[in-house]
Amino acid sequence: MIRAAIFDVFGTVVDWREGVAAAARDAFAAKGLDTDPHAFADAWRAEYQPAMQTVRSGARGYVALDQLHFENLGRVLARLGIADAFTEAEAWALNAAWEKLPPWPDSVAGIAAIRRQMIVAPCSNGSIALMTRLARFGGLPWDCILGADVARAYKPDPLAYRRSVAALRLAPPELLMVAAHNDDLAAARTEGLGTAFVPRPAEHGPGQVRDLAPTADWDFVAPDMIALASMLAE
Amino acid sequence: MIRAAIFDVFGTVVDWREGVAAAARDAFAAKGLDTDPHAFADAWRAEYQPAMQTVRSGARGYVALDQLHFENLGRVLARLGIADAFTEAEAWALNAAWEKLPPWPDSVAGIAAIRRQMIVAPCSNGSIALMTRLARFGGLPWDCILGADVARAYKPDPLAYRRSVAALRLAPPELLMVAAHNDDLAAARTEGLGTAFVPRPAEHGPGQVRDLAPTADWDFVAPDMIALASMLAE
Repeated sequence: MIRAAIFDVFGTVVDWREGVAAAARDAFAAKGLDTDPHAFADAWRAEYQPAMQTVRSGARGYVALDQLHFENLGRVLARLGIADAFTEAEAWALNAAWEKLPPWPDSVAGIAAIRRQMIVAPCSNGSIALMTRLARFGGLPWDCILGADVARAYKPDPLAYRRSVAALRLAPPELLMVAAHNDDLAAARTEGLGTAFVPRPAEHGPGQVRDLAPTADWDFVAPDMIALASMLAE
Repeated sequence: MIRAAIFDVFGTVVDWREGVAAAARDAFAAKGLDTDPHAFADAWRAEYQPAMQTVRSGARGYVALDQLHFENLGRVLARLGIADAFTEAEAWALNAAWEKLPPWPDSVAGIAAIRRQMIVAPCSNGSIALMTRLARFGGLPWDCILGADVARAYKPDPLAYRRSVAALRLAPPELLMVAAHNDDLAAARTEGLGTAFVPRPAEHGPGQVRDLAPTADWDFVAPDMIALASMLAE
C-alpha cells in the first residue's frame, strides 16, 4: 500500500534548462552580453553535482542548495569572463532563476491527480526556501516539502531518502520515489522505497543521451505524471 | 514588507479540544468506557508542555511530537485506570486524533486569503508527519511545513523560530507569527518576527481564562483569520 509519492524536481517536475536559460537571456540582454543562455544553463548545472559532493563527502557541513547555486554561479560567470558585469545583488537575482522554472506540461495536473490518492511531496536537493517559491511560481500542489533541507543531506546520500521517509512516519515501502533519473531511483530502491520512472528526454535539450529509458525494472514506468496517476489508481 | 505568515496550529488554526474529544468519545464507546471525553482531552493536553520541556531542557534529544503524544497518552490512560483496555495498535489509532482536528470556521478561507499575499506555513510543535495529515484532513492550504521537525526544537525555544525563518531564507521582520497564544508571540517578537494575535476564546472550552485578550501591543490583533487577511492586504 503506497501512502506517499515523493518527487525529484529539477528535470522530473520542472524544466530547469529552459527556465534558467530564459532568466539568463533576460539578465544578459540587460547587460548587453551575447553569452549563449543555454550553454550558460548547462555550464551552471554542470557545477551542481561537484558542489553537492563536497557536502556528501563530509568535506563541508550541510549548506542549502541556494548557497551552492550562488557559489557555482560566481564560478561560471568568472570562467566566462563576465563576473564583473553583475553586482552581488544582481547575481542573487539571477540565482533566483531556480525558483522560477516552468513545470513540464503534465506536472501540475499529474501531481494533483496523485495527491487525490496519497501524500505528495518533493524529495529534491533544493531547499525548503527554493521548493516553496518554485511551488508558488508553478502551482505545484505539494502537501509538504521533504528532501535536502529536512534530511540535511543531498541525494543520493541514503540519509536523504531515509530521513524523508521518517519525516512522514512511514515505512520505506509505503513511499514511491518518482524521478526522471535512474540513479535517483536506484538509491531510493536500495533504501526500500518503491520506484517510478518518468522519462524527460528533453531535460538536457536536443541530443540528450542519458536517462532516455529505464535501466532497471522499476515498479512503474510512465510516459508522464498524468499516466502515472492513472497507473497508481488501478 | 511581510513575505511569509507562519502559524501556530493547535488552538490557533484547529480546535484540538473538540477534535480529540470526538476521537476519544468513539474510542471509549467502542470499549464500553464512560470516561468523559473532554476531561480526557484536557488531561492529555496537560501533558504536552511537560513532555516538550524534557526536550527543551536538553534532558532528552529531539523526538517528534507524535512520540511524545503517544507516551503522554499511555500516562493518561494509566492514570484513568483504562490503559489495559487498549492494544498498542489501538493506542496509536487514538494517537492519530491529533491528525484529524477540525479547523476553526474561518481558518481555511483566511489562510487561503493570506496565501494570495505571501507564503503561508505552520510553525507548530507538531511534526511534518502530523502537520501533513492534519492539512489533508482539514484542507489547510499551506505552502510548506515549518516548525519543530525542521528546527528540531520546540517553541518557545528561540531555535524553533530562528530555524523556521532561516528555512525560508528570509530576515525575521519579513515573517509574521500568527498565534492565539501571547507567550508564542512574545517569543517570536524576541526573535524579531512580526506578531499577529487571533484570540480563540473557546480553545479550552467554557471557562477559558487565558489568552482571551492580547497582553502586549502585537502588530496585528484580529478577531479571526479572514479579518487578519484583510488587515494584511491594506
